[in-house]
Formats: sequence, C-alpha cells, structure tokens
Amino acid sequence: MPERLTRVAHLFARLPGVGEKTAQRFALFLATADEEVARDLGTELATLRDHVRPCDRCGNIAELAEGAQPDEPVRCAICRDERRDKALLCVVARVQDLLAIERSGVMRGKYFVLGRLLSPLDGISAEDLPLERLRRIVKDPEAPVSEVLVATPPSVDGEATALLVAREMASLGARVTRIASGVPHGGDLEFADQVTLGRAIEGRKSFG
Amino acid sequence: MPERLTRVAHLFARLPGVGEKTAQRFALFLATADEEVARDLGTELATLRDHVRPCDRCGNIAELAEGAQPDEPVRCAICRDERRDKALLCVVARVQDLLAIERSGVMRGKYFVLGRLLSPLDGISAEDLPLERLRRIVKDPEAPVSEVLVATPPSVDGEATALLVAREMASLGARVTRIASGVPHGGDLEFADQVTLGRAIEGRKSFG
Repeated sequence: MPERLTRVAHLFARLPGVGEKTAQRFALFLATADEEVARDLGTELATLRDHVRPCDRCGNIAELAEGAQPDEPVRCAICRDERRDKALLCVVARVQDLLAIERSGVMRGKYFVLGRLLSPLDGISAEDLPLERLRRIVKDPEAPVSEVLVATPPSVDGEATALLVAREMASLGARVTRIASGVPHGGDLEFADQVTLGRAIEGRKSFG
Repeated sequence: MPERLTRVAHLFARLPGVGEKTAQRFALFLATADEEVARDLGTELATLRDHVRPCDRCGNIAELAEGAQPDEPVRCAICRDERRDKALLCVVARVQDLLAIERSGVMRGKYFVLGRLLSPLDGISAEDLPLERLRRIVKDPEAPVSEVLVATPPSVDGEATALLVAREMASLGARVTRIASGVPHGGDLEFADQVTLGRAIEGRKSFG
C-alpha cells in the first residue's frame, strides 16, 4: 500500500471501534471510489472543530456562532435555553446518552456530560472525571441545582461512577437521584437477566 | 445534533459497512476528542485523491509521482515493474484481494482489478465490469498475455464472474486458469463445509 494510504488508515484507526483491517478497508475504498467521497469528508472534517466543540459548561456538543471569538466561552443549545429547568441537572456518561434522553422528551432540566466512566481496568480514576466543573455548576449561587439525576448506565462502571458522583454531591445540599433500572419496556421477563430482574423487584413501586 | 455534525455523519455513512449509528458515533467522537484527530484525518482525506488514484491500466492503487501532470496516465508500482511477468495476468475482484495475493509472494505476473463481482441481486451485470479494458490488456500486441488466472473468490458471485471472464477471454488465445478451491492450509476436515470438501475431492491431484 502507498505510504499515504497507510497514514490515512492509521488515522481512521483512531475512531472508536475501528481496527486495523477496517481502517485499511476505509482507506482503500476512498482511494478507489468517486473522488468527491474522500474530498467531501476531508473538507468537512478539516474544519469541523472550527464550528463544533464541546460546551465549556456541560460537555454537550455545541455549534459555534458565526464569527465567534476564539476566547468566547462555548455554550450548547441546551445550556443557552432559558426555558430549561436549571434546578434539575442530569449527569450522563456520553453525548450519545444525552441525545437518547432528549429523544425521550421527558427531561426538562439541564445536563452534564462526564465524558467517561470510572474504570479501574482502563486506569480511569476519580481524578480523570470533571468533578470540579460539576461541583461548580451545582453550587452556582445564581442558578443553584436542587436535584442531580445520575443517568450513567446500570453497568459495573456506571454504578461505580454513580456512587462516586452521589458522594461528591452529598455536601452540596442537592438531592441526588438515580435513573430506575429494571425490565425494559416491551421486554420479556423470561429473557431478562437475573440482575435486571433482581433490580426490577428491589425497585418495585406501589400502585397509584 | 448540530446540522454540521449530521452532515459529517452522512458522509461517514458512505464508507463500506458503516451504518447510521456508527457514522453518528464517529461524528460525535471527532467533535469531542482532541482537535487534531478530526483535523489530521480531514487534511489527509481532502488531498488524498491528489496523490493516490486507481491505476488507469489495472485498477490497483497507484501513488502519483511528485509534479505529475493531470492528463498523464496513472500507473501503479506493479504495472511499472519491468521484472514482472507480463504474460501472466491475475484477475481479482478487489484491491484487498490483490494485496492478499501479493503477501503470499507466489504471484510474479501482473494484475487486473475488476472492482466488483457479477451480482444479479444487486443489479450488477456484465456491462458493469471493465471487460473491454481487460480485453485490451490481454491482446496488447506489445505485451501479449498467455495466461489469465482468475482469482475471484470461490463464492456464488465469484464463480459466476470467473465463468464470465473465462468466456470473454476464450477468443483471445490466452489460456484461462482458476485458483484452486479446497480445504485451507491448517484447516480441519471435520469442520470444512460440504462444498469446500466436495471441491477438495474434485480438484484432487496426483502425488509427485
């Protein structure tokens, strides 16, 4: 393979879930497909970060305003939305999770994206999470947060992260809640795993 | 999601095997990862096709010489290699297959990349294959091809394509051969499928 194509494959391999073989396949495809395919993608990506960045406040994706100054703080559409309930803050692991919750249409508060979960196996500890930034938002005197809803996934790492966030928020006077875990809507009890069923029973609620 | 990110996701979805979800994941990753990740990939891709193109002769990947004229014919390293046997032409479906055969170190001839296989289900018929270009190479009076080795995969579409190529080459005076199909090296007979075993037996050879 030409050296330039190997370089492209290496860059593709940085994408999540893309191994060496897949990266090589992408590179070969772009070297032989219609020229615009590579050029269009390249042009968009080269300037992507001049237009889209993480929100300085919550970590969600934010689109930069036309003619924004480089030192101007970046704010996402949700952080800028004045109709949103500032007293309710939903903590998620990834932007994808935020988008999924938004699609449900149930969350009317604001968000905070951790960007990662605690993961001892991958060497990710509490210091690697943006907890100081989260703390500043929760105790902001101009917009105090009364409830922190921790919506990390109900996995081992997600639960550990939820416990950590709950502990960190304890002294700040906000109520800390956790999303419910149980049998998913439309799910079959017969095929639910033991832990899910156990949680569904432990988390049972009274009628009415 | 910001419109620009949706656009990036759409462009990613053109890559082979990348669905909408994966494309969105790539876009979100690049919008939040280190800025260089998006910029480096974008810069390389935007100019990729100024440097790497399909060989006009065989369809293999070719690197353009520094300062090459736009109307200059593009030739890959294998087509330019004078030590290669011009009388032996190996016909493959994809550049990946060519690279795999090159790694075996056994093929000393030249190649021809079809780019695709016959596939009635996908609406790909004989007219969609570069058979005219193949014919011109085989009957080139300056470097006539004496053997056309058809190395399309031993699948339904691969076999149909091999038959078509054999029929097209029949009148040109070249011998047409097909790669052997059978139990792979290191493979276990117990776990070989029926068709593979059948071919291994039909294609049996005498000792010595």
